Amino acid sequence: MSGMSFIRKAHDAKTRARTGELQTAHGLIETPVFMPVGTLATVKTLSPDDLMKMGTEIVLSNTYHLNLRPGCDIIQKAGGLHEFMAWPKPILTDSGGFQVFSLARLRSITDLGVTFQSHIDGSKHELTPAKVIDLQLQLGSDILMPLDECVSHDASQEEVRISLQRTHRWAALSKERFLVQRQDPSQMLFGIIQGGMFPDLRVESAEELLSLDFPGYAIGGLSVGEERDELYRVLDSFIDLLPEDRPRYLMGVGEPVDLVRAIGEGIDMFDCVMPTRNARNGSLFTRQGPINIRNARFIEDFTPIEEGCACATCQKFTKAYLRHLMQAQEILGLHLNSIHNLHFVLNLVRECREHIEEGTFENYKKEFCKEYQSNKSEKVCRSR
Amino acid sequence: MSGMSFIRKAHDAKTRARTGELQTAHGLIETPVFMPVGTLATVKTLSPDDLMKMGTEIVLSNTYHLNLRPGCDIIQKAGGLHEFMAWPKPILTDSGGFQVFSLARLRSITDLGVTFQSHIDGSKHELTPAKVIDLQLQLGSDILMPLDECVSHDASQEEVRISLQRTHRWAALSKERFLVQRQDPSQMLFGIIQGGMFPDLRVESAEELLSLDFPGYAIGGLSVGEERDELYRVLDSFIDLLPEDRPRYLMGVGEPVDLVRAIGEGIDMFDCVMPTRNARNGSLFTRQGPINIRNARFIEDFTPIEEGCACATCQKFTKAYLRHLMQAQEILGLHLNSIHNLHFVLNLVRECREHIEEGTFENYKKEFCKEYQSNKSEKVCRSR
Repeated sequence: MSGMSFIRKAHDAKTRARTGELQTAHGLIETPVFMPVGTLATVKTLSPDDLMKMGTEIVLSNTYHLNLRPGCDIIQKAGGLHEFMAWPKPILTDSGGFQVFSLARLRSITDLGVTFQSHIDGSKHELTPAKVIDLQLQLGSDILMPLDECVSHDASQEEVRISLQRTHRWAALSKERFLVQRQDPSQMLFGIIQGGMFPDLRVESAEELLSLDFPGYAIGGLSVGEERDELYRVLDSFIDLLPEDRPRYLMGVGEPVDLVRAIGEGIDMFDCVMPTRNARNGSLFTRQGPINIRNARFIEDFTPIEEGCACATCQKFTKAYLRHLMQAQEILGLHLNSIHNLHFVLNLVRECREHIEEGTFENYKKEFCKEYQSNKSEKVCRSR
Repeated sequence: MSGMSFIRKAHDAKTRARTGELQTAHGLIETPVFMPVGTLATVKTLSPDDLMKMGTEIVLSNTYHLNLRPGCDIIQKAGGLHEFMAWPKPILTDSGGFQVFSLARLRSITDLGVTFQSHIDGSKHELTPAKVIDLQLQLGSDILMPLDECVSHDASQEEVRISLQRTHRWAALSKERFLVQRQDPSQMLFGIIQGGMFPDLRVESAEELLSLDFPGYAIGGLSVGEERDELYRVLDSFIDLLPEDRPRYLMGVGEPVDLVRAIGEGIDMFDCVMPTRNARNGSLFTRQGPINIRNARFIEDFTPIEEGCACATCQKFTKAYLRHLMQAQEILGLHLNSIHNLHFVLNLVRECREHIEEGTFENYKKEFCKEYQSNKSEKVCRSR
């Protein structure tokens, strides 16, 4: 695990922003990159063709969910997750730690792992660091995540410290298992930095994981309901400790302004359900901030969601039509909205990449954030 | 309304089957043809691109539904229904008569028309023969249908006779209004033959409508819950009265065996919600009859729905994956299932067309019906 699969390319002179290339068995990923979330082996409402057309480079899927439905063994028999969902490009799988702590019932946690009841049928399951690696290898994931303990956003420093020690032990066990079991030397296991809202614990976590030498570092436990400024304060406390030659992945962030800001803080990878979830609720991104397509002011608005947008939805359909589809509860509306919102964030990150390479990122960031005027009281995306 | 827009091509020597071409302002339709149903200005779960790819030649939409949501005036302002739903090919609109009689509450019917309450919000509406024409002209439909009275499947002969007189008067009024108001000489208004399950009333209806000289004849009030053989018995009583040079449209039929049988009886056009509705329930067509994709026997079935099927779903996805999507209530499953079922019926009708032209239709029909072995106790499609 030498980190050779990541090559840093440009580095912005005025911010921490950078571009890079991450090599996987299923293709090269240009960073910064946004990863659409395909929790249950599908990015909701979209086919692989739809994702390709909007320039998706990698999707995220979820071990917790896939192991309950349909089961990682079934997916292995199908030839792996790429084959099962007909997605030929890279896949990152989340470990399921976050879901165990947010969805499952009757958790019992020990140093060995966690037992819980399925949120679907109450059936009992156990996850250990080794088992979580094995499941992701059954899926044939390109980038794996270790099991980690996720504490609540208002946990005390002492609670977070104890939890952190367990997460670090699990990271070491995960790496051990991964090195023995992986099928392909191009597969990667990232480390996950935890530490709650406490800068000194974040520093401790970063140093501990660095000593284990992972090919990439994820940042977990942020974007879980805290205020936006809190997120950047915590990030600032340890981001410069991370090596330049490893990708950094901020889990669960996808609000447009946050993508641009966090890229400015040196983040390379993102995932979030927000673009697709908001789309299904009728909340659509524009450069001037989100609009709700259900609003009566769109009844006779025969213009696209955003003039100049190159997405498949804006090429053909008007706000009046999209509003009608939502009012009539037509599934096509959810699909067309999802195409627009995902295209918006993928395009935004693509533009950041171009501006970093051209040395114009800082100004682009400033202009974008000013124009977007996002609702300041809004919490950052809660879902990883 | 000279019927010049339809040209009969081949005629099968052993059955009543025939092929033809119907010219509209939005392109040529080859018959026999199946029309996917886009009730609310969308064929459920599918985009215009999806419909194009599977070879859809014409879609059906519904005046009753569109007038309640979003309103025909809104669609007119959008530039018409083709523009509104981004569908460049022909559109046939149903008059809404069937929906008034099956969905709406507190109907009151007179010789002038029908008043009813919306099934959505209880608001009061009135439809007259002239208004129904005007609404369809607002939509910019290629083929319009007149308001007709739909009696229940078990109505007495006397009830049907009285209703039929009203339907005929309305047909004459509709034609009058249409000739004065239509924007484009290529637009067509079809007549609808009613008469319940009574052969002599069907003959009377056919003769009455023929005297009004429509460019096409629809057959309404069949496929409303009667047994399959009943449908063919009634059809047989009057089909030979219809002129060879006008298209014949059997409303609400879409079960695969019925498509093939009715083509053999000289029918040229079909519509039915069944392919898409069944798809959303997991019932998928195959040459050997329908399968339910939710069935546990598909958990580890890594083959397509049907080997050799050219649809976009069978090209990429397995039954195991489609089953998983249905179990996980993923919208993508409804979409992929709909693509398969619609492709199946469109392809079936296409094959019938080819076999009629090659003079091999009778044998094709026999082989198909034998292989399909459809469940005989099943009622024919209830929904027009």
